[in-house]
Amino acid sequence: LNIAVLPGDGIGPEVVEQALNATIAVCEKYNHELTYKHALVGACAIDETGNPYPDATHELCMQSDAVLFGAIGSPKYDNDPSAKVRPEQGLLAMRKNLGLFANIRPVTTFPSLIHKSPLRSDLIEGADFMCIRELTGGLYFGRPQGRSEDGNTAYDTCVYSRYEIERIVRLAFEYAMKRRKKLTVVDKANILATSRMWREVAQEIAKDFPEVETEFLYVDNAAMRMIQWPKSFDVMVTENMFGDILTDEGSVITGSMGMLPSASVGTYTSVFEPIHGSYPQAAGKNIANPLATILSAAMMFEYAFNLKEEAELIRKAVAASMDANVVTEDIAGEGVKASSTKEVGQWI
Amino acid sequence: LNIAVLPGDGIGPEVVEQALNATIAVCEKYNHELTYKHALVGACAIDETGNPYPDATHELCMQSDAVLFGAIGSPKYDNDPSAKVRPEQGLLAMRKNLGLFANIRPVTTFPSLIHKSPLRSDLIEGADFMCIRELTGGLYFGRPQGRSEDGNTAYDTCVYSRYEIERIVRLAFEYAMKRRKKLTVVDKANILATSRMWREVAQEIAKDFPEVETEFLYVDNAAMRMIQWPKSFDVMVTENMFGDILTDEGSVITGSMGMLPSASVGTYTSVFEPIHGSYPQAAGKNIANPLATILSAAMMFEYAFNLKEEAELIRKAVAASMDANVVTEDIAGEGVKASSTKEVGQWI
Ligand SMILES: CC(C)[C@H](C(=O)O)[C@@H](O)C(=O)O
Ligand SMILES: CC(C)[C@H](C(=O)O)[C@@H](O)C(=O)O
Repeated sequence: LNIAVLPGDGIGPEVVEQALNATIAVCEKYNHELTYKHALVGACAIDETGNPYPDATHELCMQSDAVLFGAIGSPKYDNDPSAKVRPEQGLLAMRKNLGLFANIRPVTTFPSLIHKSPLRSDLIEGADFMCIRELTGGLYFGRPQGRSEDGNTAYDTCVYSRYEIERIVRLAFEYAMKRRKKLTVVDKANILATSRMWREVAQEIAKDFPEVETEFLYVDNAAMRMIQWPKSFDVMVTENMFGDILTDEGSVITGSMGMLPSASVGTYTSVFEPIHGSYPQAAGKNIANPLATILSAAMMFEYAFNLKEEAELIRKAVAASMDANVVTEDIAGEGVKASSTKEVGQWI
Repeated sequence: LNIAVLPGDGIGPEVVEQALNATIAVCEKYNHELTYKHALVGACAIDETGNPYPDATHELCMQSDAVLFGAIGSPKYDNDPSAKVRPEQGLLAMRKNLGLFANIRPVTTFPSLIHKSPLRSDLIEGADFMCIRELTGGLYFGRPQGRSEDGNTAYDTCVYSRYEIERIVRLAFEYAMKRRKKLTVVDKANILATSRMWREVAQEIAKDFPEVETEFLYVDNAAMRMIQWPKSFDVMVTENMFGDILTDEGSVITGSMGMLPSASVGTYTSVFEPIHGSYPQAAGKNIANPLATILSAAMMFEYAFNLKEEAELIRKAVAASMDANVVTEDIAGEGVKASSTKEVGQWI
């Protein structure tokens, strides 16, 4: 098992360290030979090389079987609109160059964290769905993009090819087959030409998956139903920009933002990362919750290496740490002494 | 006072009837001379004329001081993707032709309905903000839109001119000045050229409103914060597509979807309508909640006629009907006998 380790910015290095430790421990137990190398990405990469996704980092990713990723972003760049090079560009370059067309985010609830959810417990308890977001097309990458010559008009382009839609919708159906066999395709087909193509392609592919119940939902309705009735979802698939909004909405309804992993899979090497950001306020303080990143390592074992038992072991250890109240302050219940990032990682 | 009445489809006619009755009653009490005419819009307009926004309807709207609107949409068209003419096109044509560039949606909570909110009571109690959505630009109207010749690529265009952004952002600042003096500008400036122009223009206009605290929020963060901390918003302004998603999200968090009015203001005549849809399942049953439409009539008195006392009287009557438990089944508490649409309207 040959992995690239990209800690990134903010709390990234601290949480990735713990996920790497868990990975090493599992490999020792199961006798897998593990090699790993670190590389720069994000603000720290700009600081050292001028490039948020340096060539050396890309090459390492291409040569690896999987990428363990932390987070990127720094207030230094957020507050400087004139900065020419920005950490986010590194993220987009990585997505495009590694062909990471599908971002997969399981939305699961943890019984001990239900009280942290902004939703009423009866609505969220037992919710368990998966958002699949297209990650290399749409408004994010469509061209032309820019300003008219006089500077008074700005434009962006949303583009999708049939092929781009087909591969991700097919993937979504395959996930639905492994789960509760329900797929929700989210679009705005009453307004957008791209959405009408999404709907058309999904209707065609649905014929190959007669066992799956397929439904179509407008994005505005999806944003409502995610709050009103999250248990109605099993697998949801949507385009890049809608996915950006809906997956973030999905991540807060469980109350366990610090717990949710993700996988970005595609043409070359897949990337595994927590869904939370670089959280610069907590950087270096040894207080960040490492569980989302450790659970991303579990996803790595399952998706990149097809090692399900190993993945399950990590998940069990995470659950055990919560049962034993060895948790960071963000999820420590009343009267529970919070542990540090390192203590939680070590225990697991 | 000269108004156009456009009941539309589904429950539209029933709820508009009650709002019109309230309008007539208020005009009698205050000795305002009222004239009104009905016109077709939506599915019923297609059925009769082939056009979801007939010229006669447009002319009536142009000659009126305000438009009282119900809802459009019919399952007949929703389930027929091959239909060439659709009710939604009537809505878009009306927005464009009347120059309705700003959709204004107050998000307010009703103490007696807090228990219907999907959010925990402490998060939503007392939330009170206003979403201002740009309504005639962006992806909805940008061209080119369509398919490549081989049919294998689809595209949409998001376009904004400086002028379009200026007028709505200025409007938003003016509303903020009349409220708690806080404005949240929602965009995706880390990705989109149009969003960068929104941010630039908003930063310029902010200089004319030094008393207003202006903040910028990415749309994905806004979707999260609306659930986690709705009380942090006062006035929010955003572009058309983001506004479509966020205003619908905003409408369900209060638990009082059937209560929320809206105004679409612009170049010519303004339109007042409930935010709920045509709800075809309930059409003709005399069970639909007329309060959102009656409150839209209140907005009409305030915004179109600058008659604040009249508006306040309608709002008081609505509150009184709720206190007296004269309410439709959707908001009737336990042990309360539900009243019909007509009974509620009559009482008010
Ligand atoms: C940082 C930003 C460019 C990125 C996106 O919009 O894709 C982020 O919001 C995400 O969801 O990973
Ligand atoms: C019916 C549809 C075209 C419309 C929109 O997307 O604007 C609706 O969702 C709305 O918000 O008024």
